[in-house]
Amino acid sequence: PPQALKPSTRVGGVATQFNHSTQRMVAVKAEAGGINPEIRKTEDKVVDSVVVTELAKPVTPYCRCWRSGTFPLCDGSHVKHNKATGDNVGPLLLKK
Amino acid sequence: PPQALKPSTRVGGVATQFNHSTQRMVAVKAEAGGINPEIRKTEDKVVDSVVVTELAKPVTPYCRCWRSGTFPLCDGSHVKHNKATGDNVGPLLLKK
Ligand code: FES
Ligand code: FES
Repeated sequence: PPQALKPSTRVGGVATQFNHSTQRMVAVKAEAGGINPEIRKTEDKVVDSVVVTELAKPVTPYCRCWRSGTFPLCDGSHVKHNKATGDNVGPLLLKK
Repeated sequence: PPQALKPSTRVGGVATQFNHSTQRMVAVKAEAGGINPEIRKTEDKVVDSVVVTELAKPVTPYCRCWRSGTFPLCDGSHVKHNKATGDNVGPLLLKK
């Protein structure tokens, strides 16, 4: 079945589609267009700060895919996300 | 009509849903689960680097919503995205 129609943990409503020719209803679970399914959903807006003078390593990757287990850091989860969806997202690299 | 079923500029395939009880097909335009609809879609993976010693301002916001007109910088487009979708994403703030 198409991925977007499967039950999903992503934030989104249940879209209801009418087939007007018969008035029989088909309920379709659909995403509402959000990109963050799980991270800090109790916060109105997830904003993080980095004091760049405190960076420890020559290069530190920060997540932009909202799938990292170590958010706001990148843990490589963008690879799975891109493979599963055909997307092309990746991290922001902070370099000292 | 539900947002996810409207024609969309976002990247995604056309999901085809069968109603097995009648074998009549209903075509549903759906997103494939990607989060970047438009930015540098010719690149396999969009990775950006910031040399933090070159930051000009005390605070520089970087985009994590993939909707900024000045990507990789944040231009505030996350506000519209969050309002339209119920999402809660925001930028990464780099502080000198
Ligand atoms: S894990 Fe999200 S960008 Fe790498
Ligand atoms: S415009 Fe994308 S996070 Fe602000």
